[in-house]
Amino acid sequence: MKSCDLIISAPWVLPVAPENAALSEHSVAISGETIIAIGLTDDILQNYSAADHLKLTHHIVLPGLINTHCHSAMTLLRGAGEDQPLKAWLEETIWPLEAAVMNDEYVTLGTQLAVAEMLLCGTTTFSDMYFLPEKVAEVCLDIGIRAQLSFPIIEFANAWSSSADDALDKGLALHDQLKDNKLVHVALGPHSGYSLSAAELEHIAEVGLRQNLPIQIHLHETAQEVADAHQSMGQSWIERCAEIGMLGSHVQAVHMTQVSEAELKLIADTDTRVVHCPTSNLKLASGYCPTTALREAGVTVALGTDGAASNNRLNLFAEARMASLLAKHAGQNAAAATAQEMLYMATMGGARALGMESVTGSLEAGKAADLIAVDINSLGMLPMYNPFAALIHGDAGNAVSHTYVAGRALVADGQLTPDSITNLAQRVQSWHAVRRPI
Amino acid sequence: MKSCDLIISAPWVLPVAPENAALSEHSVAISGETIIAIGLTDDILQNYSAADHLKLTHHIVLPGLINTHCHSAMTLLRGAGEDQPLKAWLEETIWPLEAAVMNDEYVTLGTQLAVAEMLLCGTTTFSDMYFLPEKVAEVCLDIGIRAQLSFPIIEFANAWSSSADDALDKGLALHDQLKDNKLVHVALGPHSGYSLSAAELEHIAEVGLRQNLPIQIHLHETAQEVADAHQSMGQSWIERCAEIGMLGSHVQAVHMTQVSEAELKLIADTDTRVVHCPTSNLKLASGYCPTTALREAGVTVALGTDGAASNNRLNLFAEARMASLLAKHAGQNAAAATAQEMLYMATMGGARALGMESVTGSLEAGKAADLIAVDINSLGMLPMYNPFAALIHGDAGNAVSHTYVAGRALVADGQLTPDSITNLAQRVQSWHAVRRPI
Repeated sequence: MKSCDLIISAPWVLPVAPENAALSEHSVAISGETIIAIGLTDDILQNYSAADHLKLTHHIVLPGLINTHCHSAMTLLRGAGEDQPLKAWLEETIWPLEAAVMNDEYVTLGTQLAVAEMLLCGTTTFSDMYFLPEKVAEVCLDIGIRAQLSFPIIEFANAWSSSADDALDKGLALHDQLKDNKLVHVALGPHSGYSLSAAELEHIAEVGLRQNLPIQIHLHETAQEVADAHQSMGQSWIERCAEIGMLGSHVQAVHMTQVSEAELKLIADTDTRVVHCPTSNLKLASGYCPTTALREAGVTVALGTDGAASNNRLNLFAEARMASLLAKHAGQNAAAATAQEMLYMATMGGARALGMESVTGSLEAGKAADLIAVDINSLGMLPMYNPFAALIHGDAGNAVSHTYVAGRALVADGQLTPDSITNLAQRVQSWHAVRRPI
Repeated sequence: MKSCDLIISAPWVLPVAPENAALSEHSVAISGETIIAIGLTDDILQNYSAADHLKLTHHIVLPGLINTHCHSAMTLLRGAGEDQPLKAWLEETIWPLEAAVMNDEYVTLGTQLAVAEMLLCGTTTFSDMYFLPEKVAEVCLDIGIRAQLSFPIIEFANAWSSSADDALDKGLALHDQLKDNKLVHVALGPHSGYSLSAAELEHIAEVGLRQNLPIQIHLHETAQEVADAHQSMGQSWIERCAEIGMLGSHVQAVHMTQVSEAELKLIADTDTRVVHCPTSNLKLASGYCPTTALREAGVTVALGTDGAASNNRLNLFAEARMASLLAKHAGQNAAAATAQEMLYMATMGGARALGMESVTGSLEAGKAADLIAVDINSLGMLPMYNPFAALIHGDAGNAVSHTYVAGRALVADGQLTPDSITNLAQRVQSWHAVRRPI
């Protein structure tokens, strides 16, 4: 009999590895931060004695979801500037608002709200790209959520950096601070091709390769971006990135609503990772990422919510459902983008995109205990013919009962546990009452 | 000082009439089944004394939503036969399953589950099209939800009717029974052009006109349906319906994913109502209803979930969000399909489609007290810049605290009140355990 800290038992366990397995009456044994065994509940209980045993009687246990693209603090701008064309939305609403509210308190509170919302919906890892990433790191470490912080690199002066070089200096300093941290990692976050000079973009590509750092970049978000690139430099941003070493398995290309066949081949040949943000792309009328073609070419595709200002939610289950529905529609094939495939995209797809697949994304002995439980007794999920469909096409984001990150319960019985994010509704309302910019 | 039964006060009231009004610190006064006044809370409290006063401190009050197309009992088939092409889904899964489970218990329990789910998500009126409509009527009357029952008329023998004539006889008998009922109305439900003979379809059109009955029909759901019609009869089903008097303000054309310019003109000129079921159309890869073009032509467009077997949810707020996102995407215009317009579509649009606009669909003195309250303290809806956006792009379907139909609270503080639908989860699981067809 081996001892461990926690056993979680459930009628259904979907480990994602192997990809399509649905295990009934299984248990997960956890020691410290790590999964040490998965097996039939009878076997696990015979072989392990645990300090705690969480017996879930009407739940699906699965890996925590991975939200691969977010601008977290923008939760505080949720619902501002609705139904505007993209240019007016950015220039008349978002940028002036950000300028008016940007400070430590805004980033801290907005990130707390985002993390709370993500944990309640079953997300255990997210990637952020926002100003004052030092504050974002503090929030993540305080709460205990896993994160990649892609610090924003932009040519022009902004609330965090005076130039691209300044952003690089500050971001790499944050990387130095965090380089031994198990939960929070730093990545390079060049905002986009068009918001950096040619030399700056090349320099960032070179830093990524030299320092072995992941790079997350908005790439081919709109047709306009691609048309402008062709006009100003005679090639697309994907082609430019290929030339300067900014494609590869360490690069996370976000949005990708415009991809020619030749560009798809470049992405596939370099094993570049693609982040699909379906809701945001629809809401801003940016287009649609051809996920089926990318996946058929062997490309790892992950899912992101984007910021709450263009979504307005941070519910990755909702993105997985949207990704499935849009792929069926776009391909005129009801059999496309199965629930199993979308669950993979929302978990291992995200882990692979972030280079974290040895740590999280599936339930396997040796990986971190990043896992969630979904209550299948909710009326909108009954009856249960197919646990994959219940998760993806039911309303699983509103039925998450437990969220564990590295073995710690951050949501238990549907309630957030970390002290710093209780009473958030009241704090957000107070902030809004005082700071309300519009 | 006038007396009334109930006053509901809230920081926000969105009455939908006038269409874009957002009233702050308003109250609704209700007497029996009817709204008798709406005004500033201070004024209402000065002029009305109520037996009950519901003081909502962090809520939006608005008209109940109208789910204009559903096959309710199919909730019990939710999640069966996922990710199949349409033909296999129908022929290999849905039809054999229905044949295996169809009986009074299935229709009663499945409809109860559907109504419970809809009430919890803020729907106060729905239109159903399913076998054994007498059982559906019993459930609706028992619970007290408003409904249109479009009884299914199909050429071939099925669990309810032996022929189209038999369906008409039974359905019209149900209509006779219910013709003085305030909550539940009967409509003609010819399944589709292709599932009836030419003579039968003409006969139904004639019955509709003669008896002044609404008609709901699946029309142009798929490209295949349109192609087949052109091949077999040299015209589309819309054109055929125009010839036989089956277009008009009493006709609810469901799906409409294929609409030529000439057909759009026929729909607009006859004031035919269109029911958009965006999620179901995507999930079955049927196509997309051109809602913006229809609305610009003056057509009343309403929203439906379709049955849970092809959705898998009955959350009309989710359909309103999907309708907005798809219209922005299809029109390549982020300013299209505003939250205000989608709220209208989900309320007055539905009421107009069902011919119930004098009774429900907006909060106005004299109309039925069909209204809901949405809790805006939920983390995913904060902060509150814009109540329309919070409802449509937040997750309002999961934040409904109260649902009133004709002045009766069917959901209070997030809990269902009718006795017959408490303990539903257990009853559904028991049914599934015993009857489970796959």
